[in-house]
Amino acid sequence: MRLVFGSERNKKVNGGQSTVHGITIFCGLWTVDKNFNKRSKLKIKNTCISILILFSQCISPNSNITDRPDMNNISLAIHGGAGNYTLSDLSLEEQKEYQQKLQEALDRGYDILEKGGSSIDAVEAVIRILEDSPLFNAGKGAVLTSNEKIELDASIMRGSDLAAGAVGGVTIVKNPISAARKVMENSPHVLLMGRGAEAFAKEQHLEIVDPSYFFTEKSRMQLQKIKEEEKLKLKNSEKKDKKFGTVGCVALDKNGNLAAGTSTGGMVNKKFGRVGDSPIIGAGTYADNRTCAVSCTGHGEHFIRNTIAFSVAALMEYKGLSLEQAVDYVVEEKLKRTSGTGGLIAIDKEGNIAMKMNTPSMFRAYRNTKESKVFIF
Amino acid sequence: MRLVFGSERNKKVNGGQSTVHGITIFCGLWTVDKNFNKRSKLKIKNTCISILILFSQCISPNSNITDRPDMNNISLAIHGGAGNYTLSDLSLEEQKEYQQKLQEALDRGYDILEKGGSSIDAVEAVIRILEDSPLFNAGKGAVLTSNEKIELDASIMRGSDLAAGAVGGVTIVKNPISAARKVMENSPHVLLMGRGAEAFAKEQHLEIVDPSYFFTEKSRMQLQKIKEEEKLKLKNSEKKDKKFGTVGCVALDKNGNLAAGTSTGGMVNKKFGRVGDSPIIGAGTYADNRTCAVSCTGHGEHFIRNTIAFSVAALMEYKGLSLEQAVDYVVEEKLKRTSGTGGLIAIDKEGNIAMKMNTPSMFRAYRNTKESKVFIF
Repeated sequence: MRLVFGSERNKKVNGGQSTVHGITIFCGLWTVDKNFNKRSKLKIKNTCISILILFSQCISPNSNITDRPDMNNISLAIHGGAGNYTLSDLSLEEQKEYQQKLQEALDRGYDILEKGGSSIDAVEAVIRILEDSPLFNAGKGAVLTSNEKIELDASIMRGSDLAAGAVGGVTIVKNPISAARKVMENSPHVLLMGRGAEAFAKEQHLEIVDPSYFFTEKSRMQLQKIKEEEKLKLKNSEKKDKKFGTVGCVALDKNGNLAAGTSTGGMVNKKFGRVGDSPIIGAGTYADNRTCAVSCTGHGEHFIRNTIAFSVAALMEYKGLSLEQAVDYVVEEKLKRTSGTGGLIAIDKEGNIAMKMNTPSMFRAYRNTKESKVFIF
Repeated sequence: MRLVFGSERNKKVNGGQSTVHGITIFCGLWTVDKNFNKRSKLKIKNTCISILILFSQCISPNSNITDRPDMNNISLAIHGGAGNYTLSDLSLEEQKEYQQKLQEALDRGYDILEKGGSSIDAVEAVIRILEDSPLFNAGKGAVLTSNEKIELDASIMRGSDLAAGAVGGVTIVKNPISAARKVMENSPHVLLMGRGAEAFAKEQHLEIVDPSYFFTEKSRMQLQKIKEEEKLKLKNSEKKDKKFGTVGCVALDKNGNLAAGTSTGGMVNKKFGRVGDSPIIGAGTYADNRTCAVSCTGHGEHFIRNTIAFSVAALMEYKGLSLEQAVDYVVEEKLKRTSGTGGLIAIDKEGNIAMKMNTPSMFRAYRNTKESKVFIF
């Protein structure tokens, strides 16, 4: 039966899935059985019953078609960080800058998927573009630590086999997401930290840069402002940082494989080698072909304590929720328990997308076979 | 109704819970209502109906008594690492050494709980004893990295409010579990790494030692042996390391609060700042008063990729499994998906304990109001 589906998948549309597959199987068997008039009546009767059973299984609401995603349902979502921006915080020009960069990254990832590339390739390519842009808090433009350094974290995960890689606290690797991928593919480990992760990145011939490459005037001013506010002992609620700024991507490719990745500079003014949720598989990133792929952004400590990324998958697998229901519960209810703020993007094995935050803004965009959209607020 | 339960809790035994509570409530209401013969028949009738309804609720299988744990159901479980030891690998004397140290740690933790101490105090105290012993792969006696260093990871979590703390890759902190607790209590963060974590530990006045303190002749020989095996290109399956050796503890205190903690030296011969599951909340450690507390040991990468510790809690909360069912599924089925090896200990809000591994051995022990047991195989 599996082979029959190949060419029919092009015709599949949302909501019409079961019917299309039912007809396909019926036609397939008709061809095979066209010489049956030469055989016994009993055989014909049995075949008809078999066809009816197969057909009824395929149009049943309990059909297991959902276990095999539509090969053409390629789909991609990206984020450039949840935060507290309101309409007045960003000029029209700034908004346009963000929108253009998100669109560029989105189109690059979608192009890979459209040409039959893997979701993991799309995720890495998208995040590299966002890391290279000074607009976001990842790679170039990342926020500064309290002692004016840059410490970058990233992770990536493949839904087909739960392979995962991550790096934390790297200071000289131009694209931490590529280092995370190398950890996944070329090491027996999942998470490498600090100098060790950098030595591994060098061994893998990844591009190494001087730490000064990552610095921007904006990030220096941001740190200075936060430090001044701390001196004045202003409450966080009065002058809170506008920028969480992590970047991330989730994708579903033509082979039905999900992938997720996340990259960040962490919290501005962070101390003591603080690591957030971005390099933590299960907290900031998760992907499993059985359920969904998730990338998070926000106040990382809450995403770790609530195991947010995996919780979306767990609610789908263990409680039977849809992607949308699982994401709603996690962002609206689960994060509330510890007063966590932020958001996430997620994509399921059918190509459905959910993007949700409990902050005023989240740079985000998605593209599938039907539409392409970019949002900030 | 809540107040009535206090003195009766001493009498509670497994399996008799609902009945004991039912009688308590009945007697309580009888005392309140003994002057009712002076009042109207209608009032007596209504009171009787109320008593019956309350009584039936308490003995019903659907009673929500499980939401309020028995104040005296204190319970503690510990592990000293899953591994590949078989009976022939350990002399009787060695077995006795391990058993004595596990018993000492178990009794110290239980003593804290019995005197009304918190589960987080018990977890920290137990793990400090195991870290201080050269028998286990945590603190003194930890395994060596490929460049003959010690890099220690630990995490701790409190089930009442999901507060958590962790350190990764520390080299001079005598008791990493205490550093993890300080991160939880005295920083806004969850995970601190490397030099930063050490600077924080110093600021918190934790005991700092020279890295040589952690070294043992056994760990040096272990590294040498592994390196020789690598040179000979022996397959892991032929000469695999006998020692995962992480230590951990889960506890339930008199106030119904759960806690979990884990501490490790990681994998022998590890490179590139590799971090395993032990400092990762959700992977190696999890605690939530709503469900359970979990501490894991094993091949850490698989525990991260499968978000093992939180999965036990998720299966209980989202799928309604019992602790035992959830632990069975996670160790027998979930870990299998990536061919992961190891084990875990878990305790639920009722004080039930589950200890399971898919390796030949796991040093483990538990103690509750009824018994105290230590196991190796």
